Amino acid sequence: MRQVDTLLHARWVIPVEPRGAVLDHHSLAIDEGRIVALIARAEARRSFQARNEVALERHALIPGLVNAHTHAAMNLLRGIADDLPLMEWLQGHIWPAERQWVGEQFVHDGTQLAIAEMLRGGTTCFNDMYFFPEVSARVAAGAGVRLCAGMILIDFPTAYAGGADEYFEKGLALHDEYKHHPLVRCCFAPHAPYTVSDEPLRRVQVLADELDLPLHMHVHETGGEINDSIQSFGKRPLQRLHELGLLSPSLLAVHMTHVDDNERRLVADSGTTIVHCPESNLKLASGFCQVQKCLDAGINVALGTDGAASNNDLDMLGEMRTAALLAKAVHGDASALPACDVLAMATLNGARALGLGDAIGSLRPCKWADVTALDLGALETRPLYDPISQLVYAAGREQVSDVWVAGQRLLKDRQLTQLDLTEILQRADAWQARIAAADAARGPV
Amino acid sequence: MRQVDTLLHARWVIPVEPRGAVLDHHSLAIDEGRIVALIARAEARRSFQARNEVALERHALIPGLVNAHTHAAMNLLRGIADDLPLMEWLQGHIWPAERQWVGEQFVHDGTQLAIAEMLRGGTTCFNDMYFFPEVSARVAAGAGVRLCAGMILIDFPTAYAGGADEYFEKGLALHDEYKHHPLVRCCFAPHAPYTVSDEPLRRVQVLADELDLPLHMHVHETGGEINDSIQSFGKRPLQRLHELGLLSPSLLAVHMTHVDDNERRLVADSGTTIVHCPESNLKLASGFCQVQKCLDAGINVALGTDGAASNNDLDMLGEMRTAALLAKAVHGDASALPACDVLAMATLNGARALGLGDAIGSLRPCKWADVTALDLGALETRPLYDPISQLVYAAGREQVSDVWVAGQRLLKDRQLTQLDLTEILQRADAWQARIAAADAARGPV
Repeated sequence: MRQVDTLLHARWVIPVEPRGAVLDHHSLAIDEGRIVALIARAEARRSFQARNEVALERHALIPGLVNAHTHAAMNLLRGIADDLPLMEWLQGHIWPAERQWVGEQFVHDGTQLAIAEMLRGGTTCFNDMYFFPEVSARVAAGAGVRLCAGMILIDFPTAYAGGADEYFEKGLALHDEYKHHPLVRCCFAPHAPYTVSDEPLRRVQVLADELDLPLHMHVHETGGEINDSIQSFGKRPLQRLHELGLLSPSLLAVHMTHVDDNERRLVADSGTTIVHCPESNLKLASGFCQVQKCLDAGINVALGTDGAASNNDLDMLGEMRTAALLAKAVHGDASALPACDVLAMATLNGARALGLGDAIGSLRPCKWADVTALDLGALETRPLYDPISQLVYAAGREQVSDVWVAGQRLLKDRQLTQLDLTEILQRADAWQARIAAADAARGPV
Repeated sequence: MRQVDTLLHARWVIPVEPRGAVLDHHSLAIDEGRIVALIARAEARRSFQARNEVALERHALIPGLVNAHTHAAMNLLRGIADDLPLMEWLQGHIWPAERQWVGEQFVHDGTQLAIAEMLRGGTTCFNDMYFFPEVSARVAAGAGVRLCAGMILIDFPTAYAGGADEYFEKGLALHDEYKHHPLVRCCFAPHAPYTVSDEPLRRVQVLADELDLPLHMHVHETGGEINDSIQSFGKRPLQRLHELGLLSPSLLAVHMTHVDDNERRLVADSGTTIVHCPESNLKLASGFCQVQKCLDAGINVALGTDGAASNNDLDMLGEMRTAALLAKAVHGDASALPACDVLAMATLNGARALGLGDAIGSLRPCKWADVTALDLGALETRPLYDPISQLVYAAGREQVSDVWVAGQRLLKDRQLTQLDLTEILQRADAWQARIAAADAARGPV
């Protein structure tokens, strides 16, 4: 008998690979943070002796969810100015609040709040784009969660950096610091084609190639930015990125709500990932991403929540449900984007996009033990004919019972083990008071 | 000081009338099942002495949610055959299962499961359409929840009734039995224009007028049924209903995903209510209801989940969120369907549609004390800038802590007080085993 750290015995295991598989009464053996075996319970009991054994009799185990697009610190701006036209929301509230408040403490407190929410919702890895990524990286490492920290880049100066050189310098220093970290890695995060000019984009492309890092960017979020690009550059943003050499398996193009057939082919041929953020696209009236058509074209599609200011949660279960429901109506076919495919988008496809396809995203031996357990015994998921269907169409975030990242149990029976919830909430309250007072004093645009 | 049954002290009270109001540190005084006063806490303590006093320090009180379209018993078929094309889903799975299983016990067990789910999600009143409504009525009355029981009518024989006469006879007997019941009332529920012919529809219209009862019907759910109607009747279904005299303030037209400008005017002028079921419309790829245009036209729009087989939950908080998010994208405007309007759809508009506008749907003196409390202190709804926004865009069903119907506390700290959850789940499991075996044995269509 082999000695291992942990044995998780579950009613169902949904490994994501192979597609659609559901294993009854199976167990995960975990040692030194990695999955050692996924086998039937009886066999697991014969083969392994574990220091910790956890029986999850009403639960499904899935790979930890990968949120492929967040601005985590924006949790502090959740719901500050909803139901406004897009430009009034941005220019009258979000941008002024960011100019006034964003700094190291804001990013620390907001990111910690976001991580607490994500863990309670079963997310174990997030791909973040925000200012002061060195703070987010420190918070994520401290919380034991997996982060792809965006080395942000934008044409104008902010509290974080004064210009392109400083953005690059700080980003690369961050990459240097974390390049051997087991949980945190970096990616380039040029904000969007309309906020980053050609020269820094060329530099990003060269560096991303050289360092073999992903590249995380908003692309074709709205029709307006496409029209603006045609005015300014004589071409659509995607074409511009293509000519700059940015389309590649390293690129995560976020949103992509306005994409024609030729562009879909271009994206597919280049190996670019699309990150679909359906709730943000709905809330900001950005448009409808044609997810099923993208999948049919062979594109890797991942899933993200976007920031809490435009969602207003970081709930990947809810995001899967919205994605699956919406795709059917957009595609005009009730069989579009089935539950198992949206679950892959929220796990393995996100992992692949981040260059972590061999490390996380499915429950396979040798991968890190990033695992989420959901209690499907609640009446909201009864009767239960199909665990994957139930997970996507009926389960709520409150049914996430336990979360492990690299074998460490970060959520235990719905309690956070590494984060101090009381303190996180106190700091959120303090920010709320300051931010609300300033927002009210600012008045209408 | 006046003696009352109950005083509820809440951090926020959101009465729905007037539109958008949020009252800080207010209290509801409840006596003999009805709201006696809604006043500031200090004043409440001076004016009333209560046998029960409940302090809800992190909570918002809202009117109990009104689910304006359900097939409650179908909870037993939740998730039985998802992600299939519409006709394969109906003809291969749902209809055969219904033919085989629907009877008094099925309706009893399924409706009880549904009521338990609805109460845990803050719903206090539901408008149901299913077979054996006398069983649903008995279950609802026993559970203490408010029901509008549909006197179902359909052209073909079922286990419930052999033909039009028997449907009418049973329906009217049910109405007679419950006409003075405080919680249960009846409405006519002819299934749809494509399943009920002109003669019984004329009879429904006369009876609904005579008895002053609402009329609950699927209308323009899909494009296909409109084309079929043009083939069979030479007109669109709504025009046919109009000529039959069915459009009136008594009619709840459910779905209405395909409606042109003229039809919207017709609906508005007649006072007909539209019941919007966004998640079902998405899941079955039925189309997009133009909710904001309907509201702009002056139409009363209510909200429903539809049955759990096409949703797959009865979560009205989730339904509000989907409705508000989707309306923005469909309307192309991030300010469409603001949170306070979708909350009115889920409460007062539903009450009005059912002829209960003076009885429930808002927190006003003299109305029944149908009240839902939500704990907004969870980290998923922090920080909190706007309680109504938070309720619609960030709160989850798990944040519903307490529910009262006519002053009776049916959910207390998330525990059902009148229903035996263990027994309900055991019966759901037994159905699951039988139904799944038969569905598997039936094989593909």
